[in-house]
Amino acid sequence: GAATYFALAAGPEAGVRAVAVVGDDFLESDLELLASHGVDLAGVERAPGKSFHWSGRYHDDFIERDTLATELGVFADFAPEVPEAWRRSEYLFCANIHPALQGHVLESVAQPRLSVLDTMNLWIETTRDELVAILPRVDVLMVNDSEARLLSGRRSLAAAAEAIKAMGPQRVVIKKGEHGALLFGRDSVLAVPAMILPEVVDPTGAGDSFAGGFMASIARAGADRDTDDAPYREAMLDGTVAASYVPEAFSMEGLLGRTPDDVANRLKTLRSMMIP
Amino acid sequence: GAATYFALAAGPEAGVRAVAVVGDDFLESDLELLASHGVDLAGVERAPGKSFHWSGRYHDDFIERDTLATELGVFADFAPEVPEAWRRSEYLFCANIHPALQGHVLESVAQPRLSVLDTMNLWIETTRDELVAILPRVDVLMVNDSEARLLSGRRSLAAAAEAIKAMGPQRVVIKKGEHGALLFGRDSVLAVPAMILPEVVDPTGAGDSFAGGFMASIARAGADRDTDDAPYREAMLDGTVAASYVPEAFSMEGLLGRTPDDVANRLKTLRSMMIP
Repeated sequence: GAATYFALAAGPEAGVRAVAVVGDDFLESDLELLASHGVDLAGVERAPGKSFHWSGRYHDDFIERDTLATELGVFADFAPEVPEAWRRSEYLFCANIHPALQGHVLESVAQPRLSVLDTMNLWIETTRDELVAILPRVDVLMVNDSEARLLSGRRSLAAAAEAIKAMGPQRVVIKKGEHGALLFGRDSVLAVPAMILPEVVDPTGAGDSFAGGFMASIARAGADRDTDDAPYREAMLDGTVAASYVPEAFSMEGLLGRTPDDVANRLKTLRSMMIP
Repeated sequence: GAATYFALAAGPEAGVRAVAVVGDDFLESDLELLASHGVDLAGVERAPGKSFHWSGRYHDDFIERDTLATELGVFADFAPEVPEAWRRSEYLFCANIHPALQGHVLESVAQPRLSVLDTMNLWIETTRDELVAILPRVDVLMVNDSEARLLSGRRSLAAAAEAIKAMGPQRVVIKKGEHGALLFGRDSVLAVPAMILPEVVDPTGAGDSFAGGFMASIARAGADRDTDDAPYREAMLDGTVAASYVPEAFSMEGLLGRTPDDVANRLKTLRSMMIP
């Protein structure tokens, strides 16, 4: 799920290389769909068993959600292996998974220009030590506001971001669903509102799509961890626009249906909502 | 409470005229404090009985709150009377109270350049018809997101703002606590983040302080309902900065302690957080 949303949001020009596992129930046509959108699937392993499956029910705010069922399936024994030829990849995004596995991937990619990592409450609560151990290798931590608070033990997001930076990452991106996202950069802060959508059907995947749009933007700019905050601020807008295609429909429909003109228009609308 | 926060946030140059009622328990020294900050109290009635009193408990998000006690006291029989000499006032803000009383005040002030109105869930639920009846006289409705949704019956804030505009107001300001505020203007939308505070102690009064900063800004600009969105966008920033002095301390301490330099610095910080 995360790889799919991330890769489609990043777009074909990004040349996304996916490291993931699917079960024998995963449709070949869905892999073909990704391949036809420029995603390199050499790192996708097909294992016997069921694909990872999550279902949940969102609260009225479309931010909080209760998990109805989590079936790990082939995820239970997943040991992500980065193909030899990809170990000099320049941009690395570790989607939300057990931090030990994220750590293995972080170690597999020799010297990325930038590494970004997502995580969730579950790992912060149950594998905190393993998570904290990998953070020094992470340049940008990308989490939601409740996760930032849980990890840092601080309620103020400014204090939370400072505390997280002290754990390793130079920058912290805090996602807040329909309330937008915050970048705590190296020496600046940016608050980006979410696009205001006429209707919300299902926000699942919006966070990974934000990450895909964000990383593609950083890569286009050729930025790395030492670049100043400017391309990161720009990437926050690109991530926001990419994420805006997700909640209006179920699944990947919105991302698949977007056109360059529509993306440009949304970016223009977003800027107009921000300029004081 | 509302008048106090509004007037202090608006500042002495605004020349706020307060129409309100206090009980015989209200300290003379608090009235003197307001007078010393340039608030004209000729419309403040002192009635026998207790002042209005509210207490509540905020949820962890400092947005949702549960009322612990509401004692109407002298509010129960309050009939706000606008002094004769004030009936040509140019800027009118009706704080949250029964819409019939707001309607009386709206009718008392002949032709303001701008009228702004706040309300709350209680009135939307229990006196909807009376509220809807006064909205055609209101230029800007200023409510929080849950109130906008309740009044309009729409979840999308874009749709909610459109529906509210169809009831009368040309502009809608939607306050979202620590998530900032949205202006649905005549022909533009602006999303302003809240200032990121190192600590939150008690946000009570932040909404009325936002309104005070907003109205003072509009009045300084000499704007009226027919002016374009520019001064309204600016007023959103001034409201946000004014409101930022409230949550860090109990009561009015923060507002009383601010200096022009600090206000200018916060405005600069806010702009830097917004500029894409």
